This record gives sequence, C-alpha cells and structure tokens, in this order.
Amino acid sequence: MIVNPNTTASMTRTVLEGARSAAGPATRLVGSTAASGVDSVESNTDEVYGALAVLDQVRAGEAAGVDGYVVACFGDTGLAAAREAARGPVVGMTEAALFTAALLAARFSVVTLPPRTREQSRRVLRETGLAHRATVRAIEEPVAEVHDGSLHLLGAVAAEARAALDADAAEAIVLGCAGLADLVGPLTELLNVPVVEGVAAAVTMTEGLLAQNLSTSRAATYAPPERLGPVPA
Amino acid sequence: MIVNPNTTASMTRTVLEGARSAAGPATRLVGSTAASGVDSVESNTDEVYGALAVLDQVRAGEAAGVDGYVVACFGDTGLAAAREAARGPVVGMTEAALFTAALLAARFSVVTLPPRTREQSRRVLRETGLAHRATVRAIEEPVAEVHDGSLHLLGAVAAEARAALDADAAEAIVLGCAGLADLVGPLTELLNVPVVEGVAAAVTMTEGLLAQNLSTSRAATYAPPERLGPVPA
Amino acid sequence: MIVNPNTTASMTRTVLEGARSAAGPATRLVGSTAASGVDSVESNTDEVYGALAVLDQVRAGEAAGVDGYVVACFGDTGLAAAREAARGPVVGMTEAALFTAALLAARFSVVTLPPRTREQSRRVLRETGLAHRATVRAIEEPVAEVHDGSLHLLGAVAAEARAALDADAAEAIVLGCAGLADLVGPLTELLNVPVVEGVAAAVTMTEGLLAQNLSTSRAATYAPPERLGPVPA
Amino acid sequence: MIVNPNTTASMTRTVLEGARSAAGPATRLVGSTAASGVDSVESNTDEVYGALAVLDQVRAGEAAGVDGYVVACFGDTGLAAAREAARGPVVGMTEAALFTAALLAARFSVVTLPPRTREQSRRVLRETGLAHRATVRAIEEPVAEVHDGSLHLLGAVAAEARAALDADAAEAIVLGCAGLADLVGPLTELLNVPVVEGVAAAVTMTEGLLAQNLSTSRAATYAPPERLGPVPA
Amino acid sequence: MIVNPNTTASMTRTVLEGARSAAGPATRLVGSTAASGVDSVESNTDEVYGALAVLDQVRAGEAAGVDGYVVACFGDTGLAAAREAARGPVVGMTEAALFTAALLAARFSVVTLPPRTREQSRRVLRETGLAHRATVRAIEEPVAEVHDGSLHLLGAVAAEARAALDADAAEAIVLGCAGLADLVGPLTELLNVPVVEGVAAAVTMTEGLLAQNLSTSRAATYAPPERLGPVPA
Amino acid sequence: MIVNPNTTASMTRTVLEGARSAAGPATRLVGSTAASGVDSVESNTDEVYGALAVLDQVRAGEAAGVDGYVVACFGDTGLAAAREAARGPVVGMTEAALFTAALLAARFSVVTLPPRTREQSRRVLRETGLAHRATVRAIEEPVAEVHDGSLHLLGAVAAEARAALDADAAEAIVLGCAGLADLVGPLTELLNVPVVEGVAAAVTMTEGLLAQNLSTSRAATYAPPERLGPVPA
Repeated sequence: MIVNPNTTASMTRTVLEGARSAAGPATRLVGSTAASGVDSVESNTDEVYGALAVLDQVRAGEAAGVDGYVVACFGDTGLAAAREAARGPVVGMTEAALFTAALLAARFSVVTLPPRTREQSRRVLRETGLAHRATVRAIEEPVAEVHDGSLHLLGAVAAEARAALDADAAEAIVLGCAGLADLVGPLTELLNVPVVEGVAAAVTMTEGLLAQNLSTSRAATYAPPERLGPVPA
Repeated sequence: MIVNPNTTASMTRTVLEGARSAAGPATRLVGSTAASGVDSVESNTDEVYGALAVLDQVRAGEAAGVDGYVVACFGDTGLAAAREAARGPVVGMTEAALFTAALLAARFSVVTLPPRTREQSRRVLRETGLAHRATVRAIEEPVAEVHDGSLHLLGAVAAEARAALDADAAEAIVLGCAGLADLVGPLTELLNVPVVEGVAAAVTMTEGLLAQNLSTSRAATYAPPERLGPVPA
Repeated sequence: MIVNPNTTASMTRTVLEGARSAAGPATRLVGSTAASGVDSVESNTDEVYGALAVLDQVRAGEAAGVDGYVVACFGDTGLAAAREAARGPVVGMTEAALFTAALLAARFSVVTLPPRTREQSRRVLRETGLAHRATVRAIEEPVAEVHDGSLHLLGAVAAEARAALDADAAEAIVLGCAGLADLVGPLTELLNVPVVEGVAAAVTMTEGLLAQNLSTSRAATYAPPERLGPVPA
Repeated sequence: MIVNPNTTASMTRTVLEGARSAAGPATRLVGSTAASGVDSVESNTDEVYGALAVLDQVRAGEAAGVDGYVVACFGDTGLAAAREAARGPVVGMTEAALFTAALLAARFSVVTLPPRTREQSRRVLRETGLAHRATVRAIEEPVAEVHDGSLHLLGAVAAEARAALDADAAEAIVLGCAGLADLVGPLTELLNVPVVEGVAAAVTMTEGLLAQNLSTSRAATYAPPERLGPVPA
Repeated sequence: MIVNPNTTASMTRTVLEGARSAAGPATRLVGSTAASGVDSVESNTDEVYGALAVLDQVRAGEAAGVDGYVVACFGDTGLAAAREAARGPVVGMTEAALFTAALLAARFSVVTLPPRTREQSRRVLRETGLAHRATVRAIEEPVAEVHDGSLHLLGAVAAEARAALDADAAEAIVLGCAGLADLVGPLTELLNVPVVEGVAAAVTMTEGLLAQNLSTSRAATYAPPERLGPVPA
Repeated sequence: MIVNPNTTASMTRTVLEGARSAAGPATRLVGSTAASGVDSVESNTDEVYGALAVLDQVRAGEAAGVDGYVVACFGDTGLAAAREAARGPVVGMTEAALFTAALLAARFSVVTLPPRTREQSRRVLRETGLAHRATVRAIEEPVAEVHDGSLHLLGAVAAEARAALDADAAEAIVLGCAGLADLVGPLTELLNVPVVEGVAAAVTMTEGLLAQNLSTSRAATYAPPERLGPVPA
C-alpha cells in the first residue's frame, strides 16, 4: 500500500502511477489517501496531521491484509508509528531514496520543495547517517503545485540540480517530494546523472524485504504499542 | 504553560509541582493536560496522539495569551509543530535537560524508562549534537508508574545511574521522564553528582528566552503554517 | 550475477542457493567464482586479490550481457572498480545488509568472522554513515569454515548476537559473511529479531535498481576509467 | 558575576549594561574586569592571559560570596578552570548562545570578529556538538572596536548575517563577541530572525541553574584541583 | 622505499627527487616502480591494479631488507595490504599529508586532480577523521600531466588553492597528487601559507616511526595474512 | 626544545632522556622546565598555569634561537598560544601520539592518569577527529607519581591496556602522560602491540616538519598576536 498522508486524491493517483512502473509484476499496489487531515504536507503542523492519517491508513491496511507499506511523503511522516502498527515492513520514501542514491553515487543532493521543508530532509539524513554524502536544496514552490504532475517545475528543479552538481560535487539527484515521478525522465536526460524518485525506490525496497521474509524488529523501539489511541480524558 | 501530552491529570499535577520549585516568583505556571489522546506516552504510536494533543493545547494557550510553553514529555513530542503554533518560545524538556547537563559536566547519562523509549532520547541527542558526551540507559518500568510520584523507583534508577557513572564515565544524570522531580533530591544525595530534571530545566530556559525577548525563528523551518488542520477529504 | 571474489566454487554454490530464495521469479541468477586469487577473503591482502577477481568477473559478465551484479563478500571487496566496469548497477552485500537493517531496526549489530575482518565492516559503516546505529562483533572462526554451510556455527553466532541484543541495545542482527544464509532461519527463531543476510538483501536491491532503470552515476567518481588494466612497464 | 577576561573597564560596563536587561529582578549582577592581562582577547595568546584573569576573578568572587558566574568572552576563555574554582555554576557566553540559538532555529550562524577568532567558535561548536546546525562567519574588525558600543558595526554585521541567511540556510544569528548587545535590536529589525547575544543568554542560564540548585559536577573533570597555582620552581 | 603504484618510471624519479630533500642524511631512499599495472592511478579500476603492484613491490622490498615504506599515490592505494606484508612501518602519502597539515593549521584544503579522484581524498579524510577541518578541491588535469614535473600546473593549482583560502577558510594547502613537489616552493611564495607535499611528509613520518622502533600492530586488522596470493581455482 | 609545562625539573630530565632515544643524531634537544606555575598538570586549573609557563618558555626559546618545540604534557596545554609565539613548528605530544597510533593500528586506546584528565584526551581526540578509532581509559594515580620514572606503574597500566585490547578492540596503546617512556619497552613485551609514547612521537614529527621547511600557518588562527601579554589594567 502506498500511503499518501494528505487528503488530495489526485496526488495519490499521480504517485501510484509513478510507483507502478517500478513495481514487480506480482505486486499488487494499492493507493491510500488520508481520510482526514491536510491537503498537503509541508509544515511541522501538517506532519502532525499527516502522521495521524498514516497511522489510520496503516490500520485500515492491516484489516485488509496488506503485506507492506510505503509512506509517500518526503520526510517520512508517521513512519515510526506505522512500523508499530503493521505486521509487515514499512518503508519511507525518503530513507529509500537516500539509500538508493548511496548505491549509485559517492555524493548526491536532495532537491526538495518548498525551502521550509529542508529540515525534514536533514532529519532523515541524520537518522540514516548520510549527511556526509549529501546536500539539501530547495525550490520556491508549494507541494500543492505537484498534485497533478510536475512537468511545469522541470526548469526550476533542473536549475537547482545543476547547481548541486557544480557547487556541491553531487553525482546524483534525489527528488525531494512525492508526485515528481514524471520529472525523472526529462531530468535524467538533461543532467545525465541518476535521478532517484523515492516512492519507486521504496516500493522496490518493500518488495525486497517481503521477498526476504523480513519485517520490523519488535525488540524495543518498534514493539507493539500498549495503547492504540485516544482514550477519554 | 507546562504541556503534558498525555491525558493523565495527576501526572500534570505532579509535573507542575516539580516545576514550581524552579520557576521565578514572577512566573505564573499553568499546567495543561491533553483533552484527548493517550494516558501515557511511550511508543511511537503514543507520540502521534501526544503531538496532536500538544498542538491543541498550545493553540488553546495562544487563545488564552500564554507567553511561553514547556513540552513535558521526554522525547519532546510535538515540539516542532508547537513552535509553529506559538507566538512565544517553546522548549522541550529533553533538549533543555541535555543542554543543562552539558553546562555542568563533561559527560552525562540519560536514565529513561521503559527501554523502548531509548530511541526517543537518542533522537534528541542527534538533534542537539550531544551524543558524543552522553549515553542512554533505561529501567524496565512503564511511564504509568510515575503518574503520582516516583520515589518507589529510586532503587532502580539509582542502580542504573551508578552503572552510568562507573561504566560510561558519566559525571551527571539526566532523568529521562517527566514526573521524576521527587527523585532529584534523594538521587543527588546518593550519587553526589548533578541530577537534571528536564521540566524544571525547560521552565528556567523558557523564562530566560522571554527575558531576552526571544522567540522561535519564522525564517523557514518554523514559519507559520499555511494549513491549521484537518479539512474534509 | 553473484560475484564471489574467492576461488572456492562450493561457496559460490552455497551463496547462490541462499540468494535464490529472495530473488524474484523473473530474475535469472548466475553465480561466478574467481578464476584465480585466494580461496577465502579475510585479510587486506586477500582483498587485493579479491578486488582483481571481482573486476575480471564483472568484465566477463559485461561480455555476457549481465544486467546487474552483487558483490558477495562482506567488506564489499572491489565494489568501486566493479561500478566503473559495469553498465548496470552493482550492489555490495555489506552496504545492502546495513541499509536493510536500518529499515527494520533503530539499532543493530554486525556479527562477522574472524575478528581481523571487523575493520572491513567498520569501513562500510563509515561509508554508509550508519556507525551511530550499529556495533560490530566477531566470532573466532575463519571464513573457510562456512564454505559448505554454516549451521555448525549457530551456537557461536547466537551467543555473540545475544550479547549484542543485551549489551549494545541492538534490535536486529546482520550476518557479517557470505555463506551464512542457512543461519537466518534458526537464528531468527532463537533471537526473535530480524536477521539480515547481505547477499539476499543485495539481490533484491539490485532487482529494485533495475526496475527503476537506475545505474551507477558516471559523473565523476565512477566515470568510465581511461585505463582498463596492466600495460607493460 | 559577569567576568570580563580583559582589562578594559569600559567593555565591562557595556557588557554589564546589556546583561541587566535580561536578568531577573532578584538577580544582583556584578561586573568584574581583569586586574591584569590583555585589553582585548582575540588571539590564542590573549586567551592564556584571559584564562588566568578569569581564574583570579572567580576566586575573588568566591571570597565575596558570588553565587554564579558568566564568562563574557566569545570562546569561553578560562571556563573549565573557573568551574573548578567556583562553588556555584559557571556558564560561558558562547555555549549559552549556541544552546539558545538551538532552542529557536533549526540552523543558525555565528557572526564573530575578527576572522582569526573563528576557530574559537568552532572549538565550542565541537564541544557542544552543534557544528551540524551552524556556520561561522566573521567581519574584519578587531574586538577593540566594540569596547564602547558597536552600532558603527551594524552594516558589516548585517551584511555577513544576510549572507548566512541566504547561503547557509541560517534561521537565527549568534553575535560572536561580548559587547554587541546594542546590535540586537537594530539587527533583529533588519533581518527579522532571532539575534542571540551570549552574555544575556548566559545570565539567564546561570539564573536557571541557580533556581534548580544545580552546580558543576565534581565527579572527575571539574573536581576541586589539588593545586591552586604557582609554586616556586 | 618509495612505492610508486604505477608503471611510469619517470614519475618514480620525480617523486624520489622530491622526497630526498626531506629525508635525513642517514636515510637511504629507494624508488620502486610498478613492474606491471597501469601507467597512472586515477580511477577505482586503476587502484585495483595499483594495490596489486604495491603489494608486489613491498614483497620485493622485504626480500631486499627494506626497513620502511611510503605509498606514493594520493588515496594511499594498497596501504592496508602493504602493512600486512611489511615487517616495518608503511605510511601513505595521503594520511601523512593530512596529519602534517593538521599540525600546522586549524583548517586546510586538499587540491587534487582530476575531479574524479576527490572521493579517494574523502575516503582518507573519513579514515583519519579530519573531514571536519578540510575541504577537497580539484583541477581538471589528468595525473599523467605531472609525470615529469608540474610547474606548468602552477596557475591552475594556485587558483583553486586561493579559492580554498577565501571560500573555505583554509589556512594550509595539501597537494593531492604525487609528483607535485616542484610546486611547493612557488606555491608557498604565492599563497603565503604552508603547502604540504605528502611524499615528503610520509618519508619523515616513516623515519620517525623507525626511530621509535614502531611498526604496524599485528593484533587483528593487520595481522600476517594466512594466504599470500593467487592459488589455482 | 622539550617544553615541560610544570615546575618539576626531575620530570623534565626523565622526559628529555626518553626523547633522546627517538631523536636524530643531528638534533640537539633542550629540556625546559616551567620557571613558575604548578609542579604537576592534571586539572583545568593546572592547565591555566601550564599554558602560561609554556608561552614563557617558548618565548625564551625564541630568544635563544630554538628551531622547533614539543609540548610535553598530555592534553597539549598551551599549544595554540605557543604556535603564535614560535617562528618554527610546535607539536603537542598528544596530537603526535594519536597520529602515530593511527599510522600503526585501525583502533587504539589511550591509557592516561588520573581519571580526571580523560577529558583532556577527549578534547584532543575531538580536534584531531580520531575519536571514532580510539577509547580513553585511566588509572587511579596522580601525575606526580611519574616524575622520576614509572616502572612501578607497569602493573596498573598493563591491566588497563589489556582491558582496552579485549573490550575496546584496541590494537595499539597510547601512553597518556609525559614521563612514561620507561614503560614502552616492558609494556610492548607484555602486550605485543605497539606502545606509543607521545614525546618521542612529537620529537620525530617536529624533526620531520623542520626537514620539510614547514611551520605553523600565519593565515588566521595562528597569526602573530597583536598583544604580547599583561598590560596595566
């Protein structure tokens, strides 16, 4: 299941479409849109509602027998809680994108949007430890701009990516937002370096974990939670 | 305002009482209990509900004209969103405790509970950069155990703290949970090193920020959010 | 192609067998044994010959139209050169194992063998940046011991893994040697945490990169080399 | 007591004045000027004499019953020795400024002077661990320039601070020198981000430690010294 | 013995000449050229052949009673294996250059060539831990350009070095390639900061280790290898 | 010149004797004892007086035409100021010992004394960046114990060093105090790993810098100071 933490169904469709091209033939991908929350996730406030939506969606997925999950929001909103809720593996698009870029290039750059979300990228870089191999850049566009495709952002993203190749010695580009899958092709052609789209990366990593019969450790950090949610105060 | 992300009012009272001893005479402390959510915050799932509760409480605080906030939960649940919601400064008890310990000792150790929450401490250590000066230890007790005082945990905490002094070369102890203020005195006496309680530390740091007329930067990461919350899907 | 940097064909068979269980149905796995070099890779000296063998094997693979490669030796011997030689992606079992463990657990431990190879694990931890989430342990057995299966090492590996769970707060175990695939099942049962086998992990990551049409960046570090090998002095 | 490590009494007055605005009503601030040493602290040589002066001043403070100390020199000259000499807490303006900035912004920049002192800032960044969230910049002015106020430096500091906001993604500015308190207001207005003055920050942190009855750990690093000073050779 | 991992004898002569000026009067320097391999080491592929050549040369040196070795290739190709093969100490020109620069300057910059080799410098910076004090820059010239002297590169290297002093706050320059010894003088004059040449640095460090009767630890990582090289497959 | 920051002439003699065995035949070593200050350097307070004494001694050395200096105190007391005062290079015994150990072993451990000085070792590990390859241990003995030789400490040091080899995977030992040169031989025999004595290491590194005509960068951090010392207040 591709979990979109925001309520914009068109974005789920866009993301799902992009994910399908990377998924294996035996994989049945299901898109899920937040039933309630925010229509776009940019701020830390958005992330609070996004995390709640992710948790609800994963629980619904569990009831429906979903095998594995991808959190389709740069910053991996709600990922840790989702791991506690799911029997199967849960992969964030950000961590997947960073690990993928690290398999392809000595150094790389994240191009995200808008600038206020750079800290979300840095947070995952801290968690994964890849900060020494990456820089974070941003274009001045709201996430809402990419709900129905992102080709109109090609120029802005390409300009920032070129700056990363030149000034940061980056050798690959990570697209720092869900819904940018349609940029992969044209950007690869323009830049001639690998362009990593995190949802596709996360889908293949989730397939890989399932193929290895691996799921989240229950030893401590992601052990099943004692409480499932709100109780009367 | 001391923001307790869980719904247990007795814990708010305990925490508030501990905080008062450190607060200045001109400071009016208000305790706030989550109106809904979970009665204890330990898991990543709990943190999702805790963050939502923190955000709601800070908004209520804003309506009531609160000047500054302390997030009273080890792990600083909801802190980033709270910063976006509040006009005034917001300080997490974890970051405040770590910075305070760093002012007192070359190395220190966090003694938290239960073991599954160690990752929350490590997360704040990564954010603050103090991991090179600290270790994280835990006792096997649920947070629920400390809702009405924690003196019955003195033996377990003291044993783990002693191990930190001996094996980790720690020179101070950070109490890794709200509601442990009554342990500060006896533990200090037993161990003869500084024992830092994060809520008290955060209260004084919030007072300090207010005295300097400082509040959260609106430049990017904590700029006012465009969306305030759930919209119909 | 699963590239075994040593000359021991039985080890290639063992490794290939383990890898098949994780590979997708459409993937055709080919094992490759070093035509010359050393019968086991443990020392830094062994790695010199192992890297040469990896390069030769990848070149043969290129001639045969291989799509992607897995370097099946803990330490990822010869990986960087292999990336220059291959049109398609090349994944090391070590980096793949570490990234996989990071998707499953907040902290983990590598159990490798023999102790002299711990530095090879640490080197990949430095490159991947995951040192802050991992420890490295070793049992006192030569790699030669695992050429035809490793079940006789279960006790020793389990003991060291248990020490990692207890003393290092590890929540998953990475097997630090190729040829240990038959330990995954019994060890998982004994320890009740995820046990990651790097070759299987690397196979699924290579499949994933291929599914995304991604290959090594040619921007700088892994650009095609000007020289292909020995010239008369 | 605000400890000025240099011999320039006018600077002590300037610093003390700036500090008063942040101090609580119950706090009695005392300024102290080095009785001997150097009239400005910039070089490593200056720091040797500055440290000696700090130690002497703290001892005089102890004799006079001072409760807590602030070292008012960017670089925190003599701080470690002062901690051994004082019964109460001792806070450096640099560490206090960095911790304060970290409570307000995801990233920040130190603007210090002159360029040769950047390493002093980096040293405290290494100790506090905040190097991953900060950059260090400098203007080409001697410290002597700020002994009687610093408004004439507003243009130079603002230019460098703006460069930090733009090029380093800084979200707050730390003033990297004592005696710049009069810049806080105009700079905040110009830049619209928090501007942190370390002496004010350190005064409130010292008040906070006192309110918590916390002082330096005597466990090892800051245990009372066996020797109090020069003995005949 | 100065070990040149490539097959270009003129480069060995150039390097040896540069080394002599730093060596002590009692030191007998011997140059060694790779008997087979590649005529220049730039790519990761080159490093595979270079490492093999280094190992062969060190073994020949052992047979001839050589006391200590310098690996004369930026990136320290084959260093770890050489340490296993030699009774005496082995020093890489890169690690020696970095340690030397660290004794002279708070921050420094490596100017290497061509750009694709920057990762080799970064790898040694990771191993030595000096990444926090250094930047890596490169000029667009192949290593082949320096086989018979490098004065024609003075302009390009000086321009990049000046950029390092200005933009990176570097205070010393490390020449990132063997064979640049003749640049040390003119560059020092132009830049007025220390210019470190790694082969000279490594020669004096090897002399120093010999004077202390120190050689590589045999405890684990560099213990004598069980296998000496290729065996029939 | 071997600069002993304390006033104990017998320690200078012991240290000088140990240094001679490593120095080259053309090197004329001169020992210097602090004319005033403290008779042993352990605490941060001692370091203040020690730094002052180092600065005075280096100035006397400059007047006498000394070519280079070794600071013979673990923690490298006064090193930065000494670099500003000296025309020639200045090497600290701690940095020299750490770099030397890094040339010999993948990991190593410092065995220092007494425990309160461990932070001095950690400070230099932070500066050199070698913390990821080292641990710091201490025996419970005052520095005064080693003023006339240290063979009586062999048992205690050996026990701690063995613990480092076993528990920390150390492969070499750094002696964490001046005056322990007579332990090198017996300890090497007992442990069978390299034992590094910092004064000897620093002497050979200073010789090496002089042989390369290298001295401290004057670019910024260590530029000549404007002020030479105390002025009337």
